[in-house]
Amino acid sequence: MTQALFKHAAAGVLSLEAYSPGMPIEELQRRLGVSNAIKLASNENPLGCSPRVREAVAAAVSEIDLARYPDGSGHRLKHKLASMHGIEPSRITLGNGSNDIIELLGRVFLGPDRAALFSAHAFAVYPIITQAQCARAVVVPARAADADQPYGHDLAGFSRALEVNADVALVFIANPNNPTGTWLAPTQIEAFLAQVPREVIVALDEAYYEYMEPALRGDVRAWLDRYPNLVVFRTFSKAYGLASLRVGYSLSSPELADLLNRVRQPFNNNSLALLAAEVALDDQDFVRASVELNTAERERLTQALLGMGLNVLPSQANFLAIDFGRDAKPLHQGLLERGVIVRPLASYALPQFLRVSIGTRAENDRFVEALGEVLTA
Amino acid sequence: MTQALFKHAAAGVLSLEAYSPGMPIEELQRRLGVSNAIKLASNENPLGCSPRVREAVAAAVSEIDLARYPDGSGHRLKHKLASMHGIEPSRITLGNGSNDIIELLGRVFLGPDRAALFSAHAFAVYPIITQAQCARAVVVPARAADADQPYGHDLAGFSRALEVNADVALVFIANPNNPTGTWLAPTQIEAFLAQVPREVIVALDEAYYEYMEPALRGDVRAWLDRYPNLVVFRTFSKAYGLASLRVGYSLSSPELADLLNRVRQPFNNNSLALLAAEVALDDQDFVRASVELNTAERERLTQALLGMGLNVLPSQANFLAIDFGRDAKPLHQGLLERGVIVRPLASYALPQFLRVSIGTRAENDRFVEALGEVLTA
Repeated sequence: MTQALFKHAAAGVLSLEAYSPGMPIEELQRRLGVSNAIKLASNENPLGCSPRVREAVAAAVSEIDLARYPDGSGHRLKHKLASMHGIEPSRITLGNGSNDIIELLGRVFLGPDRAALFSAHAFAVYPIITQAQCARAVVVPARAADADQPYGHDLAGFSRALEVNADVALVFIANPNNPTGTWLAPTQIEAFLAQVPREVIVALDEAYYEYMEPALRGDVRAWLDRYPNLVVFRTFSKAYGLASLRVGYSLSSPELADLLNRVRQPFNNNSLALLAAEVALDDQDFVRASVELNTAERERLTQALLGMGLNVLPSQANFLAIDFGRDAKPLHQGLLERGVIVRPLASYALPQFLRVSIGTRAENDRFVEALGEVLTA
Repeated sequence: MTQALFKHAAAGVLSLEAYSPGMPIEELQRRLGVSNAIKLASNENPLGCSPRVREAVAAAVSEIDLARYPDGSGHRLKHKLASMHGIEPSRITLGNGSNDIIELLGRVFLGPDRAALFSAHAFAVYPIITQAQCARAVVVPARAADADQPYGHDLAGFSRALEVNADVALVFIANPNNPTGTWLAPTQIEAFLAQVPREVIVALDEAYYEYMEPALRGDVRAWLDRYPNLVVFRTFSKAYGLASLRVGYSLSSPELADLLNRVRQPFNNNSLALLAAEVALDDQDFVRASVELNTAERERLTQALLGMGLNVLPSQANFLAIDFGRDAKPLHQGLLERGVIVRPLASYALPQFLRVSIGTRAENDRFVEALGEVLTA
């Protein structure tokens, strides 16, 4: 029956496996009867969000009429972002999370006769949208395990792949990359941009931008002026601590923003999400505190893991990828049984890895302790 | 530059015009310096939403951690909906508004080699998603202006169109239809379903379902069991008064739900939206009060407009389409100047119509008064 029923369904969708998100705490507690579990699986902000956001949203719930549609143009949020970035509001596209931006790009630029190019071990949503659009995926092998950015993007490999794959319409670069945490120097990115053909759109995913050392951040505004085929996107889900509310955005040429806007759902961001993001932008102290905690704990956790003789990838993000050199599934399971949820990376073709999000000091200590137990069990 | 830049962009997107939403009150007040404006342009609930929703969301904002991703599976909301509809949770797909459901259907079933079939003067998002997917649109002429459901869906015409268009993969039926307010009897819908080939998916859009007289509502559960190619979708944006929060859902076979789920963004509904919808389901008194107000005011407003000698389409929804028999643009402008926002229907190929949402008694009176002034000006 199903076969006849889905005669007209897109082939890419029929063979697609949906994105598998990190396990929610409630699910672990339900499954294993564990209580007091901690979740270090989805690169969420362990400090929550700015208290000013919570106050503003709670106030809005009684003040605004929830029966009215959101402002589909995101007027106020776009103007705030525009002023922060020193860019025109017409160059901003708002997404229901940056996942939405990735989809809009895929829907505009990918199809059966075109290809997307991205690195091995890059964010799972790139191959998913590529397949959902029935496009071809050109997967560039990652840097070697013993290179200075192990398992990271190989931009020289990107360039070579572009030369021999004329159907590439869209290139995804994640900087830093999820799930490896590896990064690219601004000079590397600019050199790549300079040689990409102008009809190839380069999507630079900066979901973890705020966690990078300032010296490693590129001059995105200058790049955008120089390369009209560049689109950069960021999110409120990480350093701003608003993953629950789904707000991301892209910066691009106004012409590219206009195209994304045509396939964007007219009310993709809900009213409370728009408000929360506006207020979050005003509390940069919260972002700074989140980044400082992350930087300090990332270093402390790295040292603890190295001290245990483990192989940790260098990271500029809010997580660490740990190479155990053997199937990590039993370790993942052992951590779950101790109430610690981390992320297995088998679906990223890294079955010997676990990815742990940087938590609070107490959470990181508990992870290290549990991991010690599991490794010696 | 733009032409080279967008060499790989989908042709359908390059020629697409984005959905144009109803004008927000703030924009009217900004544009014309009008204060105290009323908006009867987006079929929103004039009673707002259930006070229990506001209380629950305000409490949640301080209780839940907004930095955590939403439950991407919508576990609790799906189980509540499942119990309400007497259907398995695996047959439910949650959308970021029912707009999201329409897009998921388009992304699975429409492409360059396939067509969507819908009525003239049907909801604008059907042709938009069709074009965005580079699919062909088969637009069935509406019923005649002097038929019993003027400008409504002609299902006999749908059947004839299906016979001669073998590439139709997806049929949209809106019942009641926005923007006409016209409806189909359950027997008509069932007769149509019985003769549609099983490989053609029928998407029954019931966004305005709650506003229909009970006698006109079909047995959706029985239809779903009988027709595996049927998908029915509803929304929390109308009778539940939650347009700001974006929640819609579909009922279908589990197999079809599985396909939609593959292209669904993993966190398409935000956490506060999921909670609001759950709580809204528990306050059916609010829905009843909303529907009762709408039924009474729809009748009262219809009589007032007929009394002014105007031609009003019969409606089972929360709005009325008024045929002025001449270009309605100056009337729309005159109403705006008097602080009353209604919806022009020129983009629906009905330039002689205005659509007015049913408001509170006071809002409807103000609309009638303003319209009287505009017509005699």
